[in-house]
Amino acid sequence: MESMNHSIIRYILCRVIELTGILLLFPCVIALIYREKQGFVFSGVAAGCLILGSIGKRWKAKSTVFYAREGFVTVSLSWIVISLIGALPFYLTGEISSYVDAIFETVSGLTTTGGTILADVETISYTTQFWRCFTHWIGGMGVLVLIMAIMPLSGSYNMHLMRAESPGPSVGKLVPKVKTTAMILYGIYIVITFSAIIALCLSGLPLYESVTLTFSTVGTGGFGVLNSSIADYPMVTQSIFTIFMILCGVNFNLYYLFLIRKPKEALKSEELRLYIGILLVSAILITINIRGDFGNLYEAFHHAIFQTASIMTTTGFITVDFGKWPEFSRTILFLLMLVGACAGSTGGGFKVSRLLIMLKSMRNELSYVIHPRSIKKIHMDEHTVSEVVIKSTQVYVMTYVTVYLLSVLALALDKYDFATNFTAVAANLNNIGPCLGEIGPTGNYAGYSIFSKFVLMFDMLTGRLELFPMLILFSPKTWRR
Amino acid sequence: MESMNHSIIRYILCRVIELTGILLLFPCVIALIYREKQGFVFSGVAAGCLILGSIGKRWKAKSTVFYAREGFVTVSLSWIVISLIGALPFYLTGEISSYVDAIFETVSGLTTTGGTILADVETISYTTQFWRCFTHWIGGMGVLVLIMAIMPLSGSYNMHLMRAESPGPSVGKLVPKVKTTAMILYGIYIVITFSAIIALCLSGLPLYESVTLTFSTVGTGGFGVLNSSIADYPMVTQSIFTIFMILCGVNFNLYYLFLIRKPKEALKSEELRLYIGILLVSAILITINIRGDFGNLYEAFHHAIFQTASIMTTTGFITVDFGKWPEFSRTILFLLMLVGACAGSTGGGFKVSRLLIMLKSMRNELSYVIHPRSIKKIHMDEHTVSEVVIKSTQVYVMTYVTVYLLSVLALALDKYDFATNFTAVAANLNNIGPCLGEIGPTGNYAGYSIFSKFVLMFDMLTGRLELFPMLILFSPKTWRR
Repeated sequence: MESMNHSIIRYILCRVIELTGILLLFPCVIALIYREKQGFVFSGVAAGCLILGSIGKRWKAKSTVFYAREGFVTVSLSWIVISLIGALPFYLTGEISSYVDAIFETVSGLTTTGGTILADVETISYTTQFWRCFTHWIGGMGVLVLIMAIMPLSGSYNMHLMRAESPGPSVGKLVPKVKTTAMILYGIYIVITFSAIIALCLSGLPLYESVTLTFSTVGTGGFGVLNSSIADYPMVTQSIFTIFMILCGVNFNLYYLFLIRKPKEALKSEELRLYIGILLVSAILITINIRGDFGNLYEAFHHAIFQTASIMTTTGFITVDFGKWPEFSRTILFLLMLVGACAGSTGGGFKVSRLLIMLKSMRNELSYVIHPRSIKKIHMDEHTVSEVVIKSTQVYVMTYVTVYLLSVLALALDKYDFATNFTAVAANLNNIGPCLGEIGPTGNYAGYSIFSKFVLMFDMLTGRLELFPMLILFSPKTWRR
Repeated sequence: MESMNHSIIRYILCRVIELTGILLLFPCVIALIYREKQGFVFSGVAAGCLILGSIGKRWKAKSTVFYAREGFVTVSLSWIVISLIGALPFYLTGEISSYVDAIFETVSGLTTTGGTILADVETISYTTQFWRCFTHWIGGMGVLVLIMAIMPLSGSYNMHLMRAESPGPSVGKLVPKVKTTAMILYGIYIVITFSAIIALCLSGLPLYESVTLTFSTVGTGGFGVLNSSIADYPMVTQSIFTIFMILCGVNFNLYYLFLIRKPKEALKSEELRLYIGILLVSAILITINIRGDFGNLYEAFHHAIFQTASIMTTTGFITVDFGKWPEFSRTILFLLMLVGACAGSTGGGFKVSRLLIMLKSMRNELSYVIHPRSIKKIHMDEHTVSEVVIKSTQVYVMTYVTVYLLSVLALALDKYDFATNFTAVAANLNNIGPCLGEIGPTGNYAGYSIFSKFVLMFDMLTGRLELFPMLILFSPKTWRR
């Protein structure tokens, strides 16, 4: 067995550092506009990254051998590196006093979780606020997908990186070239981003808030710029958020099908139908359950569909404190936390397509027990789902449950109760943000110990990268020569 | 596709009714000894069963066609029938005023759950108390296994019934004949039962309490005869319970290996080692966590190992209110609820052997990702685990999680909080009994609504029969002609 190709991983990590430098220039522009001194910190860190990256990348890789293993390790290390660097401005500007908290905030941003350690987000400068929301946008579609789209990285490793970073049980290339696929995905992403900014501006929101909150919406992250999240905005604005959250929870491949004029094929997608079905049924059940708390049925539905979309797409915005809703509504939201959005979207969670494969496997097993001679294949969108995908989905469920429960056990050493720990893991492993229990949707994670924060950071990264990349990083087998 | 063979199912159900009649004669003996008028009710119901059963069984089956499907349906219907009949004495003696509650108590007894709706168990007559605990003993090893052991049922369907009723991912016959296997299993069970009764008597417990509590222990049920469960007994007695709970959580096949003088093979069992390992590690972690609450480390360990064994074997006895233990200990106990005992034991839960297969599948998938060319088979006790067993274990996990979460959602319509509902489902689906949260280990299920009680009964039966028999009963496909 060949040992890991360290030189190529180092090379790609240098490109990631370089990219981080470029991305950090955006908040510098904001600093110029608002004349904020935080810009010096951001430009300093950016300069450091650009210098370090450009020096490092000269040190070319010795070998181009690149397998799935290298892909997984590269992706998880990249995410850790960009989190550690991205946290520096928060810490160096003094706006977050602890570096661990700064890393927590950056991991939460990049993984599009949106859980915060800040009690008061309104005291943060425009520059830092922008960077905080921008991390959602970066993480939404993926760091390495972005590198592939804009940087001249060529070679066999593109597909392995794409597969390791993109969410869902199976990753399909839209076009034969991975680089072009990455460009198309980012193209669609940018179109949706601009549409959201324009829609929010038209609804009366100032440009700055429109931009930052768009990042949080289309990345399905959930960081707000007000302490009240989305609660203080007018209902029309809230509805725009609802629409764009739902749109970004859809598999981006379907938008590509629209682009190449195959809308029928897109609309036939079983995952899309189940996703919309779950959203609507949940929203209706919650509306019935909470109708007494609101003036009229329309208002109840408005908040029910907003919260349903916010939780299921793993965004985590809130318009009302659903921690005070009846237990039935809260349990529905908890279950939606576990389901998550569609594969290939910017949303996190278990993914609707995995749920679909899971449900079909179960139906198959039941009918196999009833009629042992009828062995059926599992179909999705008229294609047969391969045995490898089914098996890895089933193992995914088991691994997910194991990571979940062990995280709850680790958090149990802290001071919070069962419901808090249990929903905190759900909220972080599925990249949602707000949890229930003692902390509640309007609270923050500052009260957890440093150990617990590292557990939650591990969960956020493990959830965003879909378990295996992070687990492989901690497997001794990976590093054996 | 042939339609279901109804006539043979009806025939076996009549034998089940007959057997229930015989079993109901045991409490009649207790009524004679204590001269309690409840004996009339029990003998009346017993007589009814014997008459109904012997008339019904004359109506022979038209066809002997018997597949897995018929096996599953027969087993689940048998358990429902015996629950409905077994509940009659509770209701007719007036000791449980609602028939739904009486069914809940009987289902809880037969499935060896041990959760009760009674606030005060000490007011119940000796006769009824005996029947209540005796249901644990009956359910522990299984109703149809008992029928196969003692009644002249012959034919190809034995194996299907055994497979549907016995717990674990794969059921092995000890000897070629199913009837002999059933007799050996019950033989071992009876030897353990008498050993426990003698040990408890020697520790100073009165005969009646020794017998009834032995039923609750060896069936890993958990019904007590005192409101304080096991808390008021001396430590020596408590330790005897600990030992017998642990013994009955072991796969009974291992005792057979001892009998045929292959002790080495028994001790090499990977499932046994993991079971003992989890028990000890959990007990030690809890001891460290709760040591401050007790006078000395020995006492802390005594209660820690008792509760660990009680929960992991899914018995549910309590010596101290562990609802008041620190969150870390409670979370460990919650995780043990999910794991459960060994396959082929009287214990419930997910089963240690399934956990083992699950862990090995996960390790395999991880090493497959790291080294795609290394495809490994999964071994257990030096045998290769077949792909069918692995697949059905993986589907089992998914189905388990689905049933679990939907049950939590159904309970959310009731008045309790998330932690209560979540642990109540754990306690019932895994046949343990006591839950955490607002109800707590010392509480009872009387406060749940009738709808919630039916959900919990469904969970108890579904858990005891390992999902598929009950799910098949509710699948329209099963009944299609």
